[in-house]
Amino acid sequence: MDYKERYKTLLDKMNQYNSGEIGITRVAYTNLEQSCTHAFMRLCKAEGLDIRLDPCGNVIARREGRMKGLPPVVMGSHLDTVYQGGKYDGVVGVTAALEVIKRLNDKEIITDHPIEIISFACEESSRFGVSTVGSKAMAGLIDKEKYRDLEDRDGITMEKAFSLCALDFNSIDQASRADEVFHSFFELHIEQGPVLINNDKKIGIVTGVAAPARFIIKVIGKPSHSGTTPMDMRKDALLGAAEIALELEKAAKDEREHGTVATVGVLDVFSGAMNVVPGEVELKVDIRSSSLESRQRVLDRLHNIIEAIKENRKLDFDCKQISAEEPVLLCEELMELLKDICEQKEFSYQFMQSGAGHDAMNMTRLGPVGLIFVPSVDGLSHHPNEFTELDDIMMGIDVLEEAVIRAATITE
Amino acid sequence: MDYKERYKTLLDKMNQYNSGEIGITRVAYTNLEQSCTHAFMRLCKAEGLDIRLDPCGNVIARREGRMKGLPPVVMGSHLDTVYQGGKYDGVVGVTAALEVIKRLNDKEIITDHPIEIISFACEESSRFGVSTVGSKAMAGLIDKEKYRDLEDRDGITMEKAFSLCALDFNSIDQASRADEVFHSFFELHIEQGPVLINNDKKIGIVTGVAAPARFIIKVIGKPSHSGTTPMDMRKDALLGAAEIALELEKAAKDEREHGTVATVGVLDVFSGAMNVVPGEVELKVDIRSSSLESRQRVLDRLHNIIEAIKENRKLDFDCKQISAEEPVLLCEELMELLKDICEQKEFSYQFMQSGAGHDAMNMTRLGPVGLIFVPSVDGLSHHPNEFTELDDIMMGIDVLEEAVIRAATITE
Repeated sequence: MDYKERYKTLLDKMNQYNSGEIGITRVAYTNLEQSCTHAFMRLCKAEGLDIRLDPCGNVIARREGRMKGLPPVVMGSHLDTVYQGGKYDGVVGVTAALEVIKRLNDKEIITDHPIEIISFACEESSRFGVSTVGSKAMAGLIDKEKYRDLEDRDGITMEKAFSLCALDFNSIDQASRADEVFHSFFELHIEQGPVLINNDKKIGIVTGVAAPARFIIKVIGKPSHSGTTPMDMRKDALLGAAEIALELEKAAKDEREHGTVATVGVLDVFSGAMNVVPGEVELKVDIRSSSLESRQRVLDRLHNIIEAIKENRKLDFDCKQISAEEPVLLCEELMELLKDICEQKEFSYQFMQSGAGHDAMNMTRLGPVGLIFVPSVDGLSHHPNEFTELDDIMMGIDVLEEAVIRAATITE
Repeated sequence: MDYKERYKTLLDKMNQYNSGEIGITRVAYTNLEQSCTHAFMRLCKAEGLDIRLDPCGNVIARREGRMKGLPPVVMGSHLDTVYQGGKYDGVVGVTAALEVIKRLNDKEIITDHPIEIISFACEESSRFGVSTVGSKAMAGLIDKEKYRDLEDRDGITMEKAFSLCALDFNSIDQASRADEVFHSFFELHIEQGPVLINNDKKIGIVTGVAAPARFIIKVIGKPSHSGTTPMDMRKDALLGAAEIALELEKAAKDEREHGTVATVGVLDVFSGAMNVVPGEVELKVDIRSSSLESRQRVLDRLHNIIEAIKENRKLDFDCKQISAEEPVLLCEELMELLKDICEQKEFSYQFMQSGAGHDAMNMTRLGPVGLIFVPSVDGLSHHPNEFTELDDIMMGIDVLEEAVIRAATITE
């Protein structure tokens, strides 16, 4: 059996579900994404799995184990994409899980624990501005009334989108499995960053998912004429903003051992004109770390530089925190398991944090989680040119297969 | 005679010509501005002056001197405004000149040299994107074919605007007086900056008009995910731009004795998003000095920081110089004359450069020029809240009057 050929056919089949001309567009709760989901269900069915679609649109495909009543070993990721996304983000994890099941079937392996594949609904925030909806629902983390009226760019609410998929939004709470315990959860995902590629490693073993703290900072100076205002009579908001951006870079670099990152992604100069000293600038700041302490140290330095700029440049500030999520630490025992597998298979690997959110994050509510990354060429993701070598995915699947077999086997 | 009351009435009369609800809008070559211009001509006529309107729309009002054939002593400024401008920029100089004539008439002073008032057409660039059109035309500096098809925001060309004012654009060259020599030219203008107010001086004696060198600098890095890209794997274009802005500030501050200023007035982050490391940023830079050498030293530092950033941050740059005008130095003899008058009248004064362009700049082609500033409250100009104390304007008029009398008198 040529695993690689078989897997490529499966991945290509899923990516035929694409409504875009540039890259892959398979947006959550659209007809197209639902067709893809149903196709995946049929493929699972063909492998002898028990299939159900929960009220949030999550697919749960189950392979029973030898022993009754044991908690499941779960693999999962998502099939939806951003607009004009790539061929790998999400779908790799779902198809890899099915490939693992095929291998178990080929080898006629019966595990002690049951095994599940979950294809989570609506992982991407592109449509409704909220991410990992399916895994949140499964973890019992959905605030139904907050989500109901969220609109997509065409003004369709989430409730309406559910109804167009024959899903009942009002039953979304019933997707919760918060009273269950999973034996373990594994997700294989592309890295979406340049770390593995740059370090020439094949497998990333994720130690934690960094959570962003986000701020909108308004820097308020005084607009004045660029020709007639001497340098020492200016209150240039842009220069204050520049100092903030550079200090954030320094602060994050000093926290590099924790993988902390800080970014000014948006800088708007209000009424910017060539002959006007900027009077007001708005910054959008994103600071992430899987260590809350490290993130806090960067926040402290942000606070300090703002105080210094107030003093030195006589600028005013208006800071608004728009989010401060909790970082998630993954299961050390599963990290050790994954490390052991890599060493046994002689795959190069490294421990790393995930800077982006994943369904795995929410699954930590239901049991121990292992998250496996494979390299993204050029660190590119959410982009038509997103690319991961097929050989690298195959190594990821080998690790996933071994991890699931070991986890689903009772040892004593 | 209450000069102050009389002058205030005249200034208010001119500012009745206003098409805006916020501030003063009296835009060049509009019916409203032409009405104002014609009203001014009637007021000059009433003072016994010979009036003509040249083919560019400049008003020339002449008071003959005692002796035939002597070159004129000229006073001038402009009546047009920006959109939603103030009550002082330009109109102060034109009305002050008429007030000087009224005083000479009151005192029955006959000067040796003839005296002229010029109300220059289209000083502001707001309508057609080009400034000091009337004084350029008079100095023989107009490139007719470059100006003809310039359009305002309603798509009306300059040629069409001329025709709606019953002016013949094709005759604009005939506005040139480049073959004449003026004895001297004086302009009274509000400072449009905060220097006099901050230094508590009443009169600014301008030593030179700083000319801008302007650049558009594109900083090219690489967009990447703000969560998944470690700090040392980024090519953040915004951080390179921030370093440029701060270095320009330092460089200009080091040249403060030359009054040099440098400003990043526009900074655009392309496809700025909270979760994207900025891949491309465009800066618009304006560097001004009345010393070419000083300006060049700032340019050298701009060049050096760009080279350093290329090296340290692996960013690329695309720099385009969009203008590099020559600074204009004013007449030292007239500066001394103005200084002598201030000292005699016990008016506080200081020498200073002008950071903004003025008609006076072009008049240096026709003879020695003296430019007199009065304080702008808060340094504000081109704004509805532009304000200069009437008492301060009156001091400026006193200086202008005395300068014109002295200049127009033959001494030996």
